[in-house]
Parts: sequence; structure tokens; C-alpha cells
Amino acid sequence: MSLDPVDLTAKLIACPSVTPREAGTLTLLTEWLKPLGFECHHFVRGETPDGPVENLIAVRKAAQPGPHFAFAGHVDVVPPGEGWDSDPFHPVITDTEIIGRGATDMKGAIGAFVAALEGIEQDKGTLSLLITGDEEGPAVYGTRAIIDELETQSLIPDMCLIGEPSSVDRLGDTIKHGRRGSVNMWLETPGHQGHVAYPHLADNPIPKLARLAFELDALVLDHGDPPFQASNLELTLIESDDGSTGIIPGQARARLNVRFNRHHSGEALVKKVEELAAIHAPGTKVEAKISGEAFLTRDHHIIDLVSDAVNEETGLTPERSTGGGTSDGRFLHRLCPVIEFGLPNATMHKVGERAALSDIRELTAIYRNVLKRVFA
Amino acid sequence: MSLDPVDLTAKLIACPSVTPREAGTLTLLTEWLKPLGFECHHFVRGETPDGPVENLIAVRKAAQPGPHFAFAGHVDVVPPGEGWDSDPFHPVITDTEIIGRGATDMKGAIGAFVAALEGIEQDKGTLSLLITGDEEGPAVYGTRAIIDELETQSLIPDMCLIGEPSSVDRLGDTIKHGRRGSVNMWLETPGHQGHVAYPHLADNPIPKLARLAFELDALVLDHGDPPFQASNLELTLIESDDGSTGIIPGQARARLNVRFNRHHSGEALVKKVEELAAIHAPGTKVEAKISGEAFLTRDHHIIDLVSDAVNEETGLTPERSTGGGTSDGRFLHRLCPVIEFGLPNATMHKVGERAALSDIRELTAIYRNVLKRVFA
Ligand SMILES: [Zn+2]
Ligand SMILES: [Zn+2]
Repeated sequence: MSLDPVDLTAKLIACPSVTPREAGTLTLLTEWLKPLGFECHHFVRGETPDGPVENLIAVRKAAQPGPHFAFAGHVDVVPPGEGWDSDPFHPVITDTEIIGRGATDMKGAIGAFVAALEGIEQDKGTLSLLITGDEEGPAVYGTRAIIDELETQSLIPDMCLIGEPSSVDRLGDTIKHGRRGSVNMWLETPGHQGHVAYPHLADNPIPKLARLAFELDALVLDHGDPPFQASNLELTLIESDDGSTGIIPGQARARLNVRFNRHHSGEALVKKVEELAAIHAPGTKVEAKISGEAFLTRDHHIIDLVSDAVNEETGLTPERSTGGGTSDGRFLHRLCPVIEFGLPNATMHKVGERAALSDIRELTAIYRNVLKRVFA
Repeated sequence: MSLDPVDLTAKLIACPSVTPREAGTLTLLTEWLKPLGFECHHFVRGETPDGPVENLIAVRKAAQPGPHFAFAGHVDVVPPGEGWDSDPFHPVITDTEIIGRGATDMKGAIGAFVAALEGIEQDKGTLSLLITGDEEGPAVYGTRAIIDELETQSLIPDMCLIGEPSSVDRLGDTIKHGRRGSVNMWLETPGHQGHVAYPHLADNPIPKLARLAFELDALVLDHGDPPFQASNLELTLIESDDGSTGIIPGQARARLNVRFNRHHSGEALVKKVEELAAIHAPGTKVEAKISGEAFLTRDHHIIDLVSDAVNEETGLTPERSTGGGTSDGRFLHRLCPVIEFGLPNATMHKVGERAALSDIRELTAIYRNVLKRVFA
């Protein structure tokens, strides 16, 4: 058997695995990994609204003791959206590219990693693939459930490589060795509905929430925390009850997201927003969901190992970044040192998502190089 | 036949005549008015989106010349909203109150006026009822169409009493002899959609619009213009595109209303809002609809006549006010002197709208007193 990474990627893209559907991807992976000597544990966790979610832990243990290296990834994809030139779940392969939802985030990386396993001698230690079906969604029963399962089985990795599309302009230009934290908050400012002609009988929540929104946006949270960028707050929604042109609404609402570095904790940011709300929009209710705290991998062994592999295959010295969105690194970093490396991210989550065939093949070589170094 | 004003009011409330549906109210009025000698002209005007609207002109001409007195009112009501203890279109009559949408605004006044007609000798002049099915809505094909029709028929009233709920704490405490102007504006602030993790690639319209909303709310337009109150601006809606917790929206919108006295014109207010928008939320598009300019009735004959009738029945000397919302007085004042008098307005447009039975009966007596004075 010869595993072609582009072919594997295409087969994964052909499964319409919009979160939380795995749509056959985990069955394919099991089919590919079993002949390579992996024990595959495909399991379901959770109930509505955040579940059920299907996950896969594939493990290959050697007779001799050695490091446990884990590759983590997700088979779920964000909804394709409108405006594709081709069917997003019917991959198109041109001379240079493969086009389809998930090509870069991150079915291409999974295809590359599986193909990279071929020819890998692993006569010591443990190699595992931790594949979730919910990274793009609530992520309550995805990687968290995988971590529970690993802990139950006392199968804690020594290092973990996540296949997220970390590269920016060129494959290999960037690896991620940390992520900012992220917290979403929902604000509800109460008022008292009434008629515009009798404003003294009403209490308009819009100016209060508008003032609060403006003040929140003007907050300078910090000036950065190298290697982290400055923390940033963005309003992602504002709305009020919609009566009619003559009605002062009874409630106004907003939603915000903060991406933050280690100067902050999710909890402290919620408190800060609550304090500003108490001043500018008294009575405002703040609900929060902390997606993850900021984290930074301090273990240089894995960072250097992956950097060296990238450098050997591409000639580039990857920048070490903590930018961008959250990933399941927010959960996995509690288990072991985590690093993220994958394809260029220009088209991730976009209409017309695509990856260069040469990038997928080069990524395969990099992942194989990493594995050889780990199990050398 | 004996016409009980509470019974008439209840029958009108039982018709779910949310603007622009007349829902049988005009048929009921025609049934009641024909036996009293009125010629009833029920007609439809307009097309979507502002029509069609059904209106009624009922006229009783006497053989001898004399004044033309018109009573103007509307059968449409605002949507009931949520939270009623009883069905808003199934009137509940307790020992003291009638509860249902339109009880005070203004089916109670229409019931009272029709009941007041009983026993009125009108052997000179003209008596008319001008009843529209769209006062609470766009009002493009409501009273304006009635005025067109009156002009076509050369049937111009000498004075007009509008049955709007003008009273505040007690029936008879307030009559209205003018109204502030009103203008609605719609604001659209453009931005550029993007991901919260990459704010430098996006342009968030929410903080800009929030700043503008806050500044607009803080405007002091004037300090009053006796007998007019100070002008006032209220935000009636704010909203943005709703992507997801990770998306900076591409557009935000707001709606506002200004009630203004004779210090302002609708057009000048639009210009003022545009100027503030250019400073605080550049690129914001402002669309405006001027509902009416401020007006004041200067003819003391009708004001004194209605005041005296109120005083004789209630013992109160009504305050002359220009407060509150717009009414169809904004159109009718161009035809003849206009005065507004009706029930206490505490529950108008609210959940649980209600009127005291004693107020409806006393209002009937006041309207009858007015008619007697007009045709004395
Ligand atoms: Zn991803
Ligand atoms: Zn009304």
C-alpha cells in the first residue's frame, strides 16, 4: 500500500463533516491506520446541545519504552457558506491545488500526517493520533473528552503536535508555541419600554449600552506581552428590542470577544467588563464563556525539534507565533508541551478554501522528519 | 335604541384592528351611525407598502346653515405585545374598568362620541366623523386621504375635535391645542467584516455607531418653547449584522425619533444628525422621514368651548398642553382649528391597556356637552 497525502486529503474532504458530523472521516482514518499497526478507539460523548460528538484515539505502542508523541487534529469543518465555484465537498484537484472545505483547516494536515507514517520505524515509545469531531463548534465533548479518555487509560503524551494551519505566506514560515486566551461575553442592558413622546415614563437602554460599548472598545488592556500581541476586545453584536419608530425599547444587548495574553485571566476580564457596565450601564447583566486562557509552551525540546524539521525540509527558520484564534491547544497544553504546525492559513474558513499540492507533499515530508527525530 | 358607550367600546375592542386592519370596526360604526341619520362613506386608499387603508367619513347635514363640527379618530391600534393577563382583543369588563388593546387609544373615545350623539338636536350646520384605519402606522393613506376626500367634496370643517387620550392623571385635566413635530431617522454605519483574532484586517462599525448613539442621546436641542416642551431625541433601535462569536460584523444600524418644538424644522434636525454622524461615525448614511412639523392652534373659540364643556362636567379647568406624541392633528390643523381631548393616557400602547368605566361615561357627557354648545 502507498498512501498519497493528496489522495487522503481528497477522500476526507469528500465527507461533508460540518461540525458536529464526522460524516465517515473517522471510519476512513480507522481503515488507513489499522494496517499501520494502530489500535483505533472510535467513541461518542455528550448530549444535545453540545453533543453528541464522535472522536478517535489511535495508538501504536512499541515494545521498548520511549517517548509518547501525539498528533492532534480535527475532522470537522466550518459550514461552507455561499459562493463556491465548485461543490465544497467534492474536491477539485488541479495541476497545483486541491479545492474544498477543510483543505487547509485541517484535512490536508491529517492526510499529510497519515501519509507521513509510512516508512516510520517506531520500535520504542508510543505514537498516537488524537482526532476530534468538534473543534470548530462548542468543543465541550471533543478534545476534552479525548483528554479524559487518555487520563483514564494513563496514556499521557510527552509532546503533542497539532496540525492547525499555522503557516502564513509560505509553508514553514510560522509555528505556534502558544495561543492567546479567548472569552466571549453577552451583555443585557435593561430598560423600560415606552413611547418616544413620553420619555420620562420610559428608560431607554440604548444610550447606556452604546456608552458602555464605546468605553469597552476604548479600553487599552495592555501593550503586549512578548511573544504575545496586545490583548484586544471586539464587539461582535449589538441589538435592541425592535418595537416601532415610536417605541423606546425595553432591552438592549451586545456580545463581545476578548483575545488576551498572560496579563489577564478570563475571569479578571469578566470582572473588568462588569465594573465598566456598573458605571456606564447600571443593571447590565454580563454572561461569559471562557474559551481558553492564554498559554505558552516553555519546553524548548519540542519547539526546536519541529523547527529543525521544518528548516531541514524547507530551508526556512519558522517564526514562533502566538497569534490568531484559539485551537484545541487551549486544552492539550495542560497535558504536555504543545506545538502547532500546518499549512498556510490564507483560505481557512473562507469560500474557496484550497491548499497547494506541493505544500501538502512538503508538509508530509516535514511531519515524517519530525517523527524520525522523535523516535531516533 | 340606547347606545351604551362601554358596550360600544367593548364591541370595537373585540375587532383585532392592528394597523392597517380595520377588522370590522368601520362596519360597526356604519351600523351605529346610519340610524342616527349619518351618510357613511367607507372607502379604501393606497397600495403596499403604506396601504391599502380603509377610512370612514360619516356626515349629517342639517337643513339650516351653521358650523361644520368634525370629530376625528382612528380605529387602528398598536400591536398588543406580550404579557397580557387576558386576551387583548377579548375585552374584560370589571366593576370599574374595561381592559383591552385600544381601550384608551382610542376606541373608548369613539364609543363615547357615538353614544354622545344620542339626543343631540342638530337642526343647523354639519356634523361629521372622520375615522381612519391608519393613525398608528405610516398614516400616508389615512387622515391625508380623508382630507383629500373632504376637499374634493368641499366639506371643510370649521373646527375639529380629535378623540386622542389627552388626559393625564384625571379625565379632564388636559386638552391639547398643538403638537410637537416628529422626525424618524435611520442610520447605517459601514464597516468591514472579519475575524476577532485579526482585527487589523477588519473595521468594526459597532464602536463608531455606539459613540454616535451616545452623542446623539446627549444632545440638548433646546430648553423648551412655551407652550411646547423641550425637544427630545430617542434612539428606538440599534442592531448590527450577527455573524458568530468570532466575527466582527460588517454593518451596524440605528433608528431614532426626534419630537421637536418650533425652534426646529425636521430638515434642520436631519442636517444636525448628519453632521454628528460625519464626526463620530464617518461614512454613516442617514435616511429620514419627517412625520410632521410642530403646530399650535391659535383659534380660542374651540379651545374655550371644549374647556368650558370639560369644566361644566368635571369641575376641572383643563391644562392646555402640546405634549405627547404626534396625532393626526399634524394633518388636520391645515384644514381648520384642531383640539384634542380624550381619556387618561396612562396605559395607551402598553400591555394591559384599560379605561375606567366612569371615565368613558363622563367622556360621553363631555362630548355631548361640546356638541350642545357647538349647535346651540
Ligand atoms: Zn482548525
Ligand atoms: Zn391614538
